[in-house]
Amino acid sequence: MKDGDFAGVKVNQSRLMEDIHSTCEWGKGESWGSHPTETGMSRLALSDSDKAARDWFASTCESLGCTVTTDSMGNQFAVRPGLNNDAPPTFAGSHLDTQPTGGRYDGILGVTAAIEMLRTLNDNWVETTYPVGVVNWTNEEGARFPISMVSSGVWAGEIPLEKAQGLKSVIPASDTATMKSELERIGYLGDVPCNYEAVPMAAHFELHIEQGPILEATEKKVGIVRGVQAYKWFTITVKGRDCHTGTTSFAHRADALLTASKMILYSHRAASKAGALASTGILTLRPGSTNTVPGHVKFSLDIRAPADKTVDEVEAQCKRAFTAIAAGENVNGINDDCTPSDRQCSIDWVTDSVSPAVNFHDDCIRCVTDASVDLFGKDKLETLTEKMTSGAGHDSVYASKRVPTSMIFIPCRDGVSHNPAEYSTPEDCGIGAQVLTGAVLRYDRLRADRGQ
Amino acid sequence: MKDGDFAGVKVNQSRLMEDIHSTCEWGKGESWGSHPTETGMSRLALSDSDKAARDWFASTCESLGCTVTTDSMGNQFAVRPGLNNDAPPTFAGSHLDTQPTGGRYDGILGVTAAIEMLRTLNDNWVETTYPVGVVNWTNEEGARFPISMVSSGVWAGEIPLEKAQGLKSVIPASDTATMKSELERIGYLGDVPCNYEAVPMAAHFELHIEQGPILEATEKKVGIVRGVQAYKWFTITVKGRDCHTGTTSFAHRADALLTASKMILYSHRAASKAGALASTGILTLRPGSTNTVPGHVKFSLDIRAPADKTVDEVEAQCKRAFTAIAAGENVNGINDDCTPSDRQCSIDWVTDSVSPAVNFHDDCIRCVTDASVDLFGKDKLETLTEKMTSGAGHDSVYASKRVPTSMIFIPCRDGVSHNPAEYSTPEDCGIGAQVLTGAVLRYDRLRADRGQ
Repeated sequence: MKDGDFAGVKVNQSRLMEDIHSTCEWGKGESWGSHPTETGMSRLALSDSDKAARDWFASTCESLGCTVTTDSMGNQFAVRPGLNNDAPPTFAGSHLDTQPTGGRYDGILGVTAAIEMLRTLNDNWVETTYPVGVVNWTNEEGARFPISMVSSGVWAGEIPLEKAQGLKSVIPASDTATMKSELERIGYLGDVPCNYEAVPMAAHFELHIEQGPILEATEKKVGIVRGVQAYKWFTITVKGRDCHTGTTSFAHRADALLTASKMILYSHRAASKAGALASTGILTLRPGSTNTVPGHVKFSLDIRAPADKTVDEVEAQCKRAFTAIAAGENVNGINDDCTPSDRQCSIDWVTDSVSPAVNFHDDCIRCVTDASVDLFGKDKLETLTEKMTSGAGHDSVYASKRVPTSMIFIPCRDGVSHNPAEYSTPEDCGIGAQVLTGAVLRYDRLRADRGQ
Repeated sequence: MKDGDFAGVKVNQSRLMEDIHSTCEWGKGESWGSHPTETGMSRLALSDSDKAARDWFASTCESLGCTVTTDSMGNQFAVRPGLNNDAPPTFAGSHLDTQPTGGRYDGILGVTAAIEMLRTLNDNWVETTYPVGVVNWTNEEGARFPISMVSSGVWAGEIPLEKAQGLKSVIPASDTATMKSELERIGYLGDVPCNYEAVPMAAHFELHIEQGPILEATEKKVGIVRGVQAYKWFTITVKGRDCHTGTTSFAHRADALLTASKMILYSHRAASKAGALASTGILTLRPGSTNTVPGHVKFSLDIRAPADKTVDEVEAQCKRAFTAIAAGENVNGINDDCTPSDRQCSIDWVTDSVSPAVNFHDDCIRCVTDASVDLFGKDKLETLTEKMTSGAGHDSVYASKRVPTSMIFIPCRDGVSHNPAEYSTPEDCGIGAQVLTGAVLRYDRLRADRGQ
């Protein structure tokens, strides 16, 4: 195919939406609107509804001329032959499992759009040089078996198979089940080893909803994802002293909650300055009585930035500042107008997880960019696309450790995800599928040009 | 008695400590040290151990020449006759119930010291002009039946008898019991009506541990309590929007916890400036996940100050400022260096309770002051006593609504109370009992001088 030809291969938006909504009957969740498709999803990994979606994936891909294999983590790989089948396929895909109160787009869009790509290639009698694949990764959400992206992690050799297969369900109704027992139960414990050598890929492209508000707010249509943010998670414990709110003057308090409040505010200010993100999503305290100053507060801190170095810098600043704040020092005016106290709090800082920054492959990013130009025209590229860093993790993080990878984002309403009301317009879903198809075709051409 | 005579009537410190520790065998709690008396207390109101303490109170007071009556809330009044028994007694007392994990001094000191006063008057053959009484109020803690100071409240006509008697136990092991059924069960449902007309008092003096750190920190021996702080309790709900910590830039967040943190810091600054106290003892949030910015935070706010007006002013300032902070405005630099957001939080402010300031009676305060002079000498008054406002509520709050009242505080270790490790030295307990005895005698003399 030549440059001009790619633009002529058009996905069918309404057929894509039909695939999304018909398969969302399996695991349909809570309604947020009056239309039958205005519901969330509750399709936990390896549940009966996930099995139904998997069966559909396999039979649909086979009917479209693919060979479908399943590996020992239940990952499904559908491969449409090319002219030269001695080299691995260029893959597109994502995951079909959802959060317990998730939506219809997270993961599902990436798989159904890849299937729409297959349908479109068939409609247009497109013969690719190398095979093209569609992948459905198992338990990306980590909502039922508590490691997210676990099966792409095993495939990439980053998570041991035994650990992954042994993960226990955290859903009370099925809490004796492991990944392995559930894979067996629903008939998806494949005999192909789960690793990147047994099932090789030439590249991995993933279409996903943004799960954030940037594209919507800037009125862009496509996010060209260049990598995934670095992040670190911490648990901070502040110990002060329980005391009576009525009888203890400020000068004699070691108020763990006031101290934690200052730390949370400080972390926001430090991250703002560094162009990073700092967030506290969990905070618990003891003893928890209106007239007792809390002597014990524990809170989470999640620091993210595109570069590892930025995360490390914000971490170091917070560590220094939190210690000083606990000791009553006035860090950057945070104690202005506060009453000094003769008592200090102590602080304990634990690192829970470290996820370094991921940089996607320049070739893949260029294919996504070129596919966007095919769709929008060169003059609209700046106004309709945004170069982005993914804030969240995806299977593409693990895929990128073994093969050239990149992602495509589309806007989602109000940036909402992991929520029944998650929503992207049919137009935006169609745009995403079009750019995904174009990117895969362009990557196939790139390989052909290079003879690989 | 003349001025010089008062100083000669000396309490017996070791006898007082013997009463405290022997009666603390009933309802003995958790150990904090190796000595048998180094334990806390768990003597819930109207429990079997409370009955044992009440039996001791009645028999001891009777053996000391008193008539003991019990009212319909189980309040016990022991009266030692004076020369003129046509006028009501001058009372001293407190309560014998404790918190479930309380200490040996809160309440107990006030009752045992009043009994030590009786013993001392007998030892010294003191005849008072008017009768002198000792009161043991029922369920001051509100720990078992959930209104604190409930029985002095009924006595003062501030709480209806039916409501009080109908209070249900909040202790799971006895949760069908009401105050009335438990009063009946242990034989303390008296036939004397619980009110200030049926059991009149001329005055009410209460010795108590400070339950705060001021006396210890300033190395004073006696707190001359002039009143009880005003306080108001509020519940504030901040609503923002749940969003992903990784995908949502600061500019698009409505972070309910960051906003609440700013409010808590603001309330501390405003109270510091006004000479008030502001405290948050409860904070809960939703949904509570490390990678989700909380969209919902609820927290308590407890504002206290000696004057009602100060509490009202801090309340008004916080109300205005919290609304502005939720809207993203920079109140007094609280948003300095924070990233502005295009989203706002909303705020809901509920007033849970209002307790106006209480001013104790000048005559009673003067008697406590004069008794302190008797003990320490005029030249030491400034260095050894502190004029104080009680931060916590006591039965004296309700008593003061009907009769001249004041309180005496002694230091407690580290300001700790409502805790097994609550501790005051024998010397300080003795000093408290001495000042209590002196104050009651001086008040009796004041009445005699005025012929009332």
